Amino acid sequence: MNTVSADPQLAEPYLLGWLASLGLDVDYVRAEGNTLYYLGASGEEIPVLDFAGGYGSLILGHNHPRITAYAQQLLASQTPVHAQFSRHPYANDVALALNRILQRELGTEENYSAIFANTGAEAVEAAVKHAELDRGLRLAELRTRLEENLAAARAAVAAGAGVAPEAYRLAGVDARDQAAGFEALAAAVTSRNAEQTARPPVLLTLEGGFHGKLVGSVQLTHNEGYRTPFAALATPARFIPANSPQALKNVLESERATVLDWVVDNGTVSLVEQNSPVFCAFVLEPIQGEGGIRVLSEEFAQEIQRACAEADCPVIVDEVQSGMGRSGDFLASSALGLVGDYYALAKSLGGGIAKTSVMLTRQSRYRSEFELVHSSTFAKDAFSCFISQKVLEILEADDGAAYRTVRERGAKLLGMLEAVRADFPDVVKDVRGRGLMLGLEFHDQSGSGSAAIRDSAPLLGYTVAGHLMREHRIRTFPTASAVNTLRFEPSLYLTDAEIDRLELGLRDTARLLRTHDGAGLTGTATDTGTAADA
Amino acid sequence: MNTVSADPQLAEPYLLGWLASLGLDVDYVRAEGNTLYYLGASGEEIPVLDFAGGYGSLILGHNHPRITAYAQQLLASQTPVHAQFSRHPYANDVALALNRILQRELGTEENYSAIFANTGAEAVEAAVKHAELDRGLRLAELRTRLEENLAAARAAVAAGAGVAPEAYRLAGVDARDQAAGFEALAAAVTSRNAEQTARPPVLLTLEGGFHGKLVGSVQLTHNEGYRTPFAALATPARFIPANSPQALKNVLESERATVLDWVVDNGTVSLVEQNSPVFCAFVLEPIQGEGGIRVLSEEFAQEIQRACAEADCPVIVDEVQSGMGRSGDFLASSALGLVGDYYALAKSLGGGIAKTSVMLTRQSRYRSEFELVHSSTFAKDAFSCFISQKVLEILEADDGAAYRTVRERGAKLLGMLEAVRADFPDVVKDVRGRGLMLGLEFHDQSGSGSAAIRDSAPLLGYTVAGHLMREHRIRTFPTASAVNTLRFEPSLYLTDAEIDRLELGLRDTARLLRTHDGAGLTGTATDTGTAADA
Repeated sequence: MNTVSADPQLAEPYLLGWLASLGLDVDYVRAEGNTLYYLGASGEEIPVLDFAGGYGSLILGHNHPRITAYAQQLLASQTPVHAQFSRHPYANDVALALNRILQRELGTEENYSAIFANTGAEAVEAAVKHAELDRGLRLAELRTRLEENLAAARAAVAAGAGVAPEAYRLAGVDARDQAAGFEALAAAVTSRNAEQTARPPVLLTLEGGFHGKLVGSVQLTHNEGYRTPFAALATPARFIPANSPQALKNVLESERATVLDWVVDNGTVSLVEQNSPVFCAFVLEPIQGEGGIRVLSEEFAQEIQRACAEADCPVIVDEVQSGMGRSGDFLASSALGLVGDYYALAKSLGGGIAKTSVMLTRQSRYRSEFELVHSSTFAKDAFSCFISQKVLEILEADDGAAYRTVRERGAKLLGMLEAVRADFPDVVKDVRGRGLMLGLEFHDQSGSGSAAIRDSAPLLGYTVAGHLMREHRIRTFPTASAVNTLRFEPSLYLTDAEIDRLELGLRDTARLLRTHDGAGLTGTATDTGTAADA
Repeated sequence: MNTVSADPQLAEPYLLGWLASLGLDVDYVRAEGNTLYYLGASGEEIPVLDFAGGYGSLILGHNHPRITAYAQQLLASQTPVHAQFSRHPYANDVALALNRILQRELGTEENYSAIFANTGAEAVEAAVKHAELDRGLRLAELRTRLEENLAAARAAVAAGAGVAPEAYRLAGVDARDQAAGFEALAAAVTSRNAEQTARPPVLLTLEGGFHGKLVGSVQLTHNEGYRTPFAALATPARFIPANSPQALKNVLESERATVLDWVVDNGTVSLVEQNSPVFCAFVLEPIQGEGGIRVLSEEFAQEIQRACAEADCPVIVDEVQSGMGRSGDFLASSALGLVGDYYALAKSLGGGIAKTSVMLTRQSRYRSEFELVHSSTFAKDAFSCFISQKVLEILEADDGAAYRTVRERGAKLLGMLEAVRADFPDVVKDVRGRGLMLGLEFHDQSGSGSAAIRDSAPLLGYTVAGHLMREHRIRTFPTASAVNTLRFEPSLYLTDAEIDRLELGLRDTARLLRTHDGAGLTGTATDTGTAADA
């Protein structure tokens, strides 16, 4: 399956060794549709059916002929890739196309502004940066208003206005200080407000979420193995259990910051408590990908939106994996009734060839100052933008036939997975997802009668992936942070025959797990295990 | 020069408006070598001579025919782009080729391990993450050793060993506590060590540096406009003035963390002070790009290396812009006698087409655990790796003819810039750089006799860029954080005729500045200014 080289391994040899131990160290030489090919001993191409789908990047499959042909045309016509700081009509065309889709799905007329990046993590970080810039500007506006209103209150007091006793209570100024009059109150309020407006930003996100592995974004990624070694490098996020409105409420309440603002009304100066912008953003996936293909409930999605609006916390919807039609809608979040302040799109937006991503900000939140402080040499290039246009054109053709196809193919694939579950309820714990973003979760195997299976239980999904590769030439992986769940993210061109092949592989796997056949599952000659409690 | 559209501008309209005000809103349709083309009124192609060079990404020029042809061949042969978690021999081949080059230039036999990413900022962040993972592992090792040595010291005391009085002094335990004996000392030392080993990581970098604009990397970028709005999102860096050994020494001394370790020798227990790994990394560019094309001095580069080795602070060399031959060597740092623990490479590594970057870690620092916690969906793909191989093949051909060409062409371009400076010392303040990474700095123009020039002084380089574009069809930009400095980063295929064209444009510009001809420089009909102090 592999070429052997005498050269040292300098590109992740440890990972490669681990993949090799599972039979996953395949050297692919060609890819087309849902198939990757490696070379057999005689140089013949051996096909592997791909359900990993570039971790969600291949809604149009590997090397889609129209995308590839268009890419070749762009190269042949010497399209300028590096034209930073010029007019980019092709980028605006992508933004316009995305806005037409968003407005249709979200039922809004509001435009979203586009900032381009290169990867999903970069788009998430651009959204977080924009939200933080906006928070800083809102804080500056608030501080100015507080100063102006204090000046107005002071002038009113000088002109004879009274101060509501309630104001002293709100500001925590005791009776003795009240004797010092308005200036003691003003000093207390100003100090309290300065403290509240200086509080560090609060980033909220969901347990089980995955938002990238860069220095900032990895702190939004729940998986401790990925996150905690780097916790000292960036602001930690507050993680909220998915589908738990009470936990959401508690966190919003406990992290809330408020200022006391001055009101002069009818000859009396009083104070009102107002939110101070302490919340940078709430970042979420409508369908958690690496967290085990978990769809956010409509109720919770809408509760997040309501509660965040109340707390003036912008919502960043990470559709890096779930977007671009994978769920059966362009945005998985639109089916949840969620309208985000920001969207991050990537993966399939590049058509399986371009590395491109985009961060969208709703106009009412948008700060044009961001355009002067954020940029990327590789982003917003003509090649990537033209490829994205072609992807959107293919998805939108025939009044959205692609989305209907995703739903129909997804239903068929889901039906098969559910049938396997129904036949193996002792092995398959759950089947879930939407469209062509589906997961199948195995029961924990740490009590298996096979020692080999027990040993592999902590990383079960990879052992199963190795079996499916070796015995069925099927490529799939567990979700990165929930390794008992296999992911299935094929292209929308998935055929019935391909579903049938996967079914054979999964039924074989389920049978091996049911019968505690560790030798069969791991491909080893012997399985020393007998009983779980041996 | 531009097409006019009735559609809303949703992709950075503010930036576009600003570019338009300078005449820089050009809509390029084709690119080749050192030339970008836009369409004239009759649809004819109008060439623009490009010295911006994709901000350093185009050492081989726009759409290099061999790179483009190879890219087309890769597309035609359905190269698998998305094959995560498989064998990537092409990535290892890039790593091997880079190691051959590094070992030649650095005069070392040590291998560097490669982690692939997609952009320069991502590679810098991967290096910082690796350094932080390594720091955490070194801290864990240190804590274990301290516990073991404490246990040994305790056992020795129980067996009758004495405690050196000096140990109490080192631990800051006073006479009364000494009466409590060894356990009081142990408690004090353990508490002090726990405090020191818990200190947050220190990131060091240079004033004027630029290392990206992602959440983490932007905190390593000195420019306040880019950095400060996002300061609350990630760990701030300590900025050290370039070429200031005393400042470096002071910072290393003030940030240093130490622990007290136990030694049992000859029947006596004593304490020795040792470094605790508080330094995450020192990140630097050998030639600052956005900071104004400033070459680090050999003396300071070597002083950084010496001082960082002493402090056990790894050095991350950011060669994103200066690498891949641009300086006349593959690594600009190799000419400085600097050997990094990490290198970040990007820009020209993608040959002007691929978005790819790589982070290299020397074997003696490398932690294979990193391979399991860091990854990117788009990174390490066959398409990008094959393109990088081709780039390295072109650079290395004929025993490094490309590097010799860069030096020869660079010397010629630098000679022209120096001649312009010699003729306009009142206008041109400095000319500097190495190879084909050159800058020309104008004197401050805030005292110009032209109001238009005075007004443009805060962003002078952009006004000059507008003039060169409008009147000479030459594309160049100031360095992002030093806007009086124009950058020149053409491809190595730069011709004498192209140098001559730039000379005409620069002499024209210098004449306009010398004669306070604001109308001529800004392209406006009138210039109302008379005297600087008017």
